Amino acid sequence: MPIFILDVDATFKSVKAAKSEPLKVASANWVATGWLVARFVKTCVVIDVGSTSTSIIPVINGGILAAGKTDLEKLMNGELVYTGSLRTNVAAIVSSVPLRNCVVRVASELFADSGDVHLALGNISEKEHTTETADGRGKTRREVLARLARVVCADIEMLDKEEIVQIARYICGEQVRQVAEALEQVFSRIKSHTNEKIPVVVTGLGKIFIARAAAKMIGVDEVIDLEKLIFGDAFVYGIPSSASIKEGVTKASPAFGVALMTACKLQGEN
Amino acid sequence: MPIFILDVDATFKSVKAAKSEPLKVASANWVATGWLVARFVKTCVVIDVGSTSTSIIPVINGGILAAGKTDLEKLMNGELVYTGSLRTNVAAIVSSVPLRNCVVRVASELFADSGDVHLALGNISEKEHTTETADGRGKTRREVLARLARVVCADIEMLDKEEIVQIARYICGEQVRQVAEALEQVFSRIKSHTNEKIPVVVTGLGKIFIARAAAKMIGVDEVIDLEKLIFGDAFVYGIPSSASIKEGVTKASPAFGVALMTACKLQGEN
Repeated sequence: MPIFILDVDATFKSVKAAKSEPLKVASANWVATGWLVARFVKTCVVIDVGSTSTSIIPVINGGILAAGKTDLEKLMNGELVYTGSLRTNVAAIVSSVPLRNCVVRVASELFADSGDVHLALGNISEKEHTTETADGRGKTRREVLARLARVVCADIEMLDKEEIVQIARYICGEQVRQVAEALEQVFSRIKSHTNEKIPVVVTGLGKIFIARAAAKMIGVDEVIDLEKLIFGDAFVYGIPSSASIKEGVTKASPAFGVALMTACKLQGEN
Repeated sequence: MPIFILDVDATFKSVKAAKSEPLKVASANWVATGWLVARFVKTCVVIDVGSTSTSIIPVINGGILAAGKTDLEKLMNGELVYTGSLRTNVAAIVSSVPLRNCVVRVASELFADSGDVHLALGNISEKEHTTETADGRGKTRREVLARLARVVCADIEMLDKEEIVQIARYICGEQVRQVAEALEQVFSRIKSHTNEKIPVVVTGLGKIFIARAAAKMIGVDEVIDLEKLIFGDAFVYGIPSSASIKEGVTKASPAFGVALMTACKLQGEN
């Protein structure tokens, strides 16, 4: 079976060619997502909030108009925010949190991660929390709240549940704000390329509680769920719409994109 | 040999008493440092910047006037800043860094820690960097710079040395700013207790490049090095002033304090 490597310009390279230009193929997953969305919406900004990081991909007239090709360039241009739904250390999201009308500095250890935050807030289910926890313990509500309390060097005897949930709400808000700030940066750059209103297409585990919230925060009118977009248009590609495939589209959009891209290339489409 | 546990009120408790009141004895190391300094300077603020965290201890008229007794209360009151000279994840210190006239978001992983920052800047020697590195590799300049480059998802081929050192300088500045902010908070609270100018006494591995820098940042006139204070007054306690004991005073002030406290109690002093 031949192996091809997707590059940052949305073309497939041979293994040999990929090896000779590693920066052209490193971390190119966002390209597949951008390509996929561009099949459905010609001009938009895609936000894919995964477990670990968030890609913001501008699509103009059916093509990806990314300012950054490497992760470094993307971090500069607002096209990559290293914050996600599960694996992000809370200490990397906030330096302090509000509590009892005070501001409390947080511990700089890995005591809790964004998975705990979103479990505590009911944004994700225990089943959706697929990664290891910070302390290796379980994902029951009690264990989740204990980890979050530890972020301010406390425990579930020192803080009551509502106080801990309030802390989680603040941390979630900060994640949204960081993604919104990057989204704003991408919008300012691309708005000169079109006169149309630019919708936002959201995907990834954090598509609702982070991506859509960020788009709403900066006043985007139209926010489209990629999963609904694809299965509204399923006939075109003959994709069966089982629950597990729908889930796959949301949680692994790049994989879905690259599969569809391969199918199109095999059929001689572009 | 009898075992006693130091509590947050600077008294020794039996093991049984300590067990019955765990919050009274948890994380009480700062008490020993405060007690130690109060033997020499009746009114001051102590800053002890260790490998992992920074204690800010107000001493008024020979007594410790801490607003917080637990870590949670200290994080609220500016008496504990969870930032240190070696073990602090860079992603917990900054959310972005300046580079090439841009602002770059940082990766939220543990790619580099404050030990790398201070090695890169020459603030500490390789020998003083006593903890594990983030990637398990060594502490040569090349390895240190590689870890720091990774914080912005780059490597030492994508960034030149001076750019990486600039990033380290910015991160160090942010640590200083965070400690200065907490110091300011402590000063505002205690200044009504005395008409004297309040000096700052610094100790810990980060006493010069973090503690003194923070004191200078908020305009403190007099900054005293605890090590020099003690060995200028060595006759009183008959402490031999070998280089290793001096180093011990700086790097483990609480241990030195609790030893001296024990000696005083045994001699019937307070």
